[in-house]
Amino acid sequence: MGRMADVLAFTKGHGTENDFVLVPDLDGTLGLSPARAAFLADRRAGIGGDGVIRVVPTAHADEDDVRAQAEQARWFMDYRNADGSAAEMCGNGTRVFAAYLRREGLESADEFVIATRAGAKRVRADGDGWAVELGPWRLTDPAASERDGVDALVHLGEGDPYSAVSVDLGNPHTVVALPEEVDLESVDLSRPPVVRPEPPHGTNVEVVRPIGPGHIAMRVHERGVGETRSCGTGACAAAVATSFWAGSLDTGSTWTVDVAGGRLTVRLLADHGVELAGPAVLVADGTLPLATLPA
Amino acid sequence: MGRMADVLAFTKGHGTENDFVLVPDLDGTLGLSPARAAFLADRRAGIGGDGVIRVVPTAHADEDDVRAQAEQARWFMDYRNADGSAAEMCGNGTRVFAAYLRREGLESADEFVIATRAGAKRVRADGDGWAVELGPWRLTDPAASERDGVDALVHLGEGDPYSAVSVDLGNPHTVVALPEEVDLESVDLSRPPVVRPEPPHGTNVEVVRPIGPGHIAMRVHERGVGETRSCGTGACAAAVATSFWAGSLDTGSTWTVDVAGGRLTVRLLADHGVELAGPAVLVADGTLPLATLPA
Repeated sequence: MGRMADVLAFTKGHGTENDFVLVPDLDGTLGLSPARAAFLADRRAGIGGDGVIRVVPTAHADEDDVRAQAEQARWFMDYRNADGSAAEMCGNGTRVFAAYLRREGLESADEFVIATRAGAKRVRADGDGWAVELGPWRLTDPAASERDGVDALVHLGEGDPYSAVSVDLGNPHTVVALPEEVDLESVDLSRPPVVRPEPPHGTNVEVVRPIGPGHIAMRVHERGVGETRSCGTGACAAAVATSFWAGSLDTGSTWTVDVAGGRLTVRLLADHGVELAGPAVLVADGTLPLATLPA
Repeated sequence: MGRMADVLAFTKGHGTENDFVLVPDLDGTLGLSPARAAFLADRRAGIGGDGVIRVVPTAHADEDDVRAQAEQARWFMDYRNADGSAAEMCGNGTRVFAAYLRREGLESADEFVIATRAGAKRVRADGDGWAVELGPWRLTDPAASERDGVDALVHLGEGDPYSAVSVDLGNPHTVVALPEEVDLESVDLSRPPVVRPEPPHGTNVEVVRPIGPGHIAMRVHERGVGETRSCGTGACAAAVATSFWAGSLDTGSTWTVDVAGGRLTVRLLADHGVELAGPAVLVADGTLPLATLPA
């Protein structure tokens, strides 16, 4: 075994089966190149995850607008996609990040603020899980209200397209309410849904089925990825769209959102805010030799 | 952190990107139920791997025919599929198992024997990797020789079927030699190939393209799994079939076999023996709390 300096420590965790490799960089000296992040996320040659999260003091962030969050947020969630590229944020990732900070004693309060590339985000302990304030949300096309809440048609496999509404949460979502006669499991998400009019930068597509009062189930096709087990901002978009169609966007109204990887809770806040709550699981801890990582 | 007894140690490793979670059970007291093995193999909720390998003294194996190998082989490779069920063997897994035994000091020689459910297997250090004796191989239909080395037709997506020969290596393989005008990357393996006559217990399908003298590239569709990055017995079957079509099954002849996950070497031995050589990478080591595992 090498000295500690010769190994990279990691923790594998997930939130509703959206999974991450967390790497502590407590003094901001770890070089986490895109190639290294991609290696860690590689499910067969590396550790494996939907993304990689570097845990670094906000004051050590490379980006000016992240360092500017240092007065509010001690720790920066440096999120990387599985291909190693930097990403703004990840709703399910924030919960796992918060759980890690608390377990490691890096934060001790039940509520604190974390820094992200999409701005500072407030998190709070919520039972066994964590809740994070996302948003503000907005309708991509404000005029959708005047057209029965529809601004797009979505083709899922063969057959007629479905009506949908587009919701922006920092990233684009298009939410389809399935007709009662169509089973959620029968929907073909093996190929990217075709959305018309075509969103200029693509979109995530959520297919939603009501389960009961304040309770929906959804499946999600993530832009550039395919169908996934969960998408935090997607759950928020699904709750917002369902509220919108129901004509009640009341502050405080709460939705249970079942996804393939588990159960999330979405609460509507004032001023188009939205809170995502759900489980955060720290599965395993380990190390790998730095010498085996790419440069 | 808990006492050592409260955590399960694991190592993640791979051979040509066929990946495994290894768990040491040096005194044979770890209960590794199918549910626990499936949890460890779960890529999102657990650690993630194509399979799980328990490292246990041969004398502690549950199976009589494995314990009978204890005089030759000190350690038993208790291989589990990703669904938790017990499996006979895994060619790529044997190399990772051997590399682990050496690194941990559980074996010290450059050549030793390991116990498997498919019988005792000799392994030897081979450069940076390991080699394992597999086989014996046999033609599934001995009369294939009299029919230009063809005993099956394989449909891959649309279009005409391809000629193939079936090779048994303890598990069934059907090997397709692509015509020169067809590109290996263009073959559709997204759905299970249709093999006629239909093998009674299904079959793995290897699609092979010659690269040069003693050098082939292949892609593999594993029975019940889908296309994978590598298959050790599949590489052996591809080398045997190619030798068979070339009319030279000479002992000692060596094939380089390129798979999606890297490069393997297959050597034909006497008496229908075959040796598979290639890399074995121990990627990371870690622990997880026993309390979080299913029963």
